[in-house]
Amino acid sequence: MSYGWKEYAVELEPSKELLKPLVVPVKTLMAPGPSNCSERVLKSLQHQLLGHLHPETLKLMDEIKAGLQYAFQTKNTLTLAISASGHAGMEASLGNILEPGETVLIIKSGEWGSRAANMSTRLGAHVEYLETELGVPATLTDLEAALQRHRPAVIFLAHAESSTGMKQPVEGIGPLAHRYGALLIVDTVASLGGEPFYADSWAVDVVYTGSQKVLGAPPGITPISFSPAAEKKIFQRRTQVPVLYWDMTVLGRYWGCFDGPRMYHHTICATLIYGLREALAQLAEETLPVSWMRHKAAALRLEEGLRRRGLELYISNPQHRLVTIVPIRIPENIELQLVIEEAMRKHKVELAGGLGPTSGKIMRMGLMGVNATPYHVDLLLNALDDGLRYARLVKKSKI
Amino acid sequence: MSYGWKEYAVELEPSKELLKPLVVPVKTLMAPGPSNCSERVLKSLQHQLLGHLHPETLKLMDEIKAGLQYAFQTKNTLTLAISASGHAGMEASLGNILEPGETVLIIKSGEWGSRAANMSTRLGAHVEYLETELGVPATLTDLEAALQRHRPAVIFLAHAESSTGMKQPVEGIGPLAHRYGALLIVDTVASLGGEPFYADSWAVDVVYTGSQKVLGAPPGITPISFSPAAEKKIFQRRTQVPVLYWDMTVLGRYWGCFDGPRMYHHTICATLIYGLREALAQLAEETLPVSWMRHKAAALRLEEGLRRRGLELYISNPQHRLVTIVPIRIPENIELQLVIEEAMRKHKVELAGGLGPTSGKIMRMGLMGVNATPYHVDLLLNALDDGLRYARLVKKSKI
Repeated sequence: MSYGWKEYAVELEPSKELLKPLVVPVKTLMAPGPSNCSERVLKSLQHQLLGHLHPETLKLMDEIKAGLQYAFQTKNTLTLAISASGHAGMEASLGNILEPGETVLIIKSGEWGSRAANMSTRLGAHVEYLETELGVPATLTDLEAALQRHRPAVIFLAHAESSTGMKQPVEGIGPLAHRYGALLIVDTVASLGGEPFYADSWAVDVVYTGSQKVLGAPPGITPISFSPAAEKKIFQRRTQVPVLYWDMTVLGRYWGCFDGPRMYHHTICATLIYGLREALAQLAEETLPVSWMRHKAAALRLEEGLRRRGLELYISNPQHRLVTIVPIRIPENIELQLVIEEAMRKHKVELAGGLGPTSGKIMRMGLMGVNATPYHVDLLLNALDDGLRYARLVKKSKI
Repeated sequence: MSYGWKEYAVELEPSKELLKPLVVPVKTLMAPGPSNCSERVLKSLQHQLLGHLHPETLKLMDEIKAGLQYAFQTKNTLTLAISASGHAGMEASLGNILEPGETVLIIKSGEWGSRAANMSTRLGAHVEYLETELGVPATLTDLEAALQRHRPAVIFLAHAESSTGMKQPVEGIGPLAHRYGALLIVDTVASLGGEPFYADSWAVDVVYTGSQKVLGAPPGITPISFSPAAEKKIFQRRTQVPVLYWDMTVLGRYWGCFDGPRMYHHTICATLIYGLREALAQLAEETLPVSWMRHKAAALRLEEGLRRRGLELYISNPQHRLVTIVPIRIPENIELQLVIEEAMRKHKVELAGGLGPTSGKIMRMGLMGVNATPYHVDLLLNALDDGLRYARLVKKSKI
C-alpha cells in the first residue's frame, strides 16, 4: 500500500513557552470567586470523556437537574445548566424572557445591574433603573413605585451584589412583580447554597447561579431554572430567542425538560458534568440547612475577627450582609495592592479589592463552599494581618 | 458570641440518585467526536482552580493563544478561545461579522450549513445557499456564480462536513471571496490538527475549531481566530454585537489581543484552560506535519480494512475524503443500531450513525487525536466485525 505522501510543510513554528511543563500553584481562593474545589470534585474531573448523548451522560444530567432543583428549592421542570460561565446565565435569562421593545426594570445596587443593562440594550429592550445607595437594598415600597412608573415586562436583581457584599432580600418581590404583570429574574451567582433561597415559595421566575462559588465545581457550566410562567412566555415569544446556544425551547429538549425525545443541541463538556454532579452530591449530602449554617458561622467568626482588629465592615446593617462575601473599608493610609500581594506571597491566600463602583474603596473576602470553615477564616485573618503589617512597613520605609 | 440561629427549613428534599457514588465507564470514542483525552490532558484537569485574572491564568491564556496561532497557522492577534462549546464558535463567528440585513452565503453540503442558517436568521441576516450534492464539495466556479448572484457580505463553509465525511477544499476561496467584498468563515471543528489547514495563506477571515476532536482537550472551550479584515469589520459595525458573552471587542481585551490592559469579562474555566494548554502543547511537540501524516496513515489503514471486508466508502472521490471521519454506506439488511450496540457492549468502542441528511444511510467512524493510531484502527475494525456479526445473527434468528 503506497501512502503517496505529499510534502507537508508549515509556515509558522510553535511557541517555546508552550513546550515547557505545566505548573499550577495551589492557592486558597478567598476572593468573591471562584472558590476552591473539594478533593472529590477535582478527582472527578480526571475521568475520561463521555459522548454528549451517551446514556451515562444523560443520566448524570438528570442527576444534576435533580440536584439543582434541590439547590434552588424549586419543582421547575425547565431546570438545567448552560455550557458557559455565569455571565451567560445573566445573558440567557434576559435573552429568553425579554423581547425587543419591552422594558426591563433593573435594581441597580452595584456592578451587576450595569452589566444586565448592557445586555438588555443589545437585545433591543428598554432599560429603567431602580438605583439604590451602595450597600443598601431596595425596599418593596421603592419597587412598587418603580413598577407603577415604568410598567416593566421583566425585573432583574442580584440576590448577592458581590461588588458591595450586600444581600437584597427577595421575599415579597415575586408576588409584587406578578401583580404588575412582570416576571422576576434573580442572580444568585454569589449566594446560592450559602444564603437561604427558595425559588418556588418566593415566586422567582428565572434564577441562575455560578458553579464555581458556593457549589464548588469548576466554572464554565451555569445552573439556571425557569418557572412555568417564564417557560410559557418563552414559548409564546413574538420573535425567536436571538441566540440558538441558549434558546431554552431547544436546549431544554437536550436536557429532557419537555415531553418528547432528547435531541442533540451542542457537545456538553463531560468533565464539567462530572464536577458539577459531584459538587451537587456533596451539597445534597451536607443538606442545605447545614451548608447555610456553616457559611453563617464562618461569616460571623470572620466579622468578629475583623472587629477585634478595628477594621470597619462596609455594610453597616447586619441584616443586609452576605455570609459569602465580607467587605471592609480600606483602612486609612493602607495601599490595598500591597496587602493583597503579601497575603498571596506568604500564604497563597487570595484577597480582592472592590469591583466597579467600589473599586479602590473596599477589600472583599470570600467564604464560599469548602472554604467556609473556621480553619479558613483563621488562615484568612492571619494572611490579612501579615498583609496589613507589610503595607504599613512599606509606607513607613517611604516616609 | 451568640449566633442567633433562626430555623432553617427546606421544602424539597435531595434526590436519592445523586447520593450514589459517581461511576464513569472508560470508552474508546471513535464516533465523529468528542474523541478521548490523553493521559497528560486528563491529569492536568485535576489541578486546583486558579482565578480568572491571576497572572498564572493570563500566562496560560497567552500560551494557548500561541498554540492556536500555530494550529491555525496564523499570525492573527485576535486569536483566543470562547468559554463555550463548538456550537458557540459558529454562533460567535456569525454574530461578530454579520450585521442585520446583510446577506450570508452558506455552502450547504450537509448538517452544518443548516445550523449556520438558523443562527444567521436569528441575527436578522438574509440567507442564501450554495447547495451541493451530499459528499461532493462546492467548486470555485459554482462559488463565483453564487457570489455574482447574491453579493453576500459573508461566506460560511465547513472544512470538515462531519455529517458526510466530506472535505471541502478551502484554497482559492478566500481570495475569490475578497474579490467580491465578502469575508470568509471556515468551520474546522472536525478537521483542525488532522487535515492540513493554513488560515493565513488561504486568506480565511474567521476560523474556529472544537477542542474535543483532534486537539484532544475536553469540550467547552472553543478556539477561534479573526483576520485583520474581520477585526476591522467588527470594530466598524453599525450595530453592537448582540451578545456580550462573545463580543470580540470586549472578550479580545480579556485575552490581551489589543493594546491596553486586560479587563475582566467573565470567569474563565481554569480546568479547561489546563486541558487545552496541554493538548496544544502535545500538538506543538508532535508538530503539525507529523500529526497530519499520522491521521492520514490511520485513515488509509482503516479504508483498506473496510475495503477488504467489502464495505463501501460513502465518499467516492478519495480527494474529498476526510482523514478524521470515515463513513461507509450501511450494508444491506443490517440494522445499524445493533452494530453500534454490540461494538459498545463488547469493546467499549463508540461508533456512530449518520447525522441530519445522512441519518439512516451511513455509519461514521472517527479517527481523531490520540485515537488516530494503527492500534485504534485495528480495535475499531475488530469491534465493527463483531457488531456486523451480531446484527446478522439477530437478523437470522428473526427469520
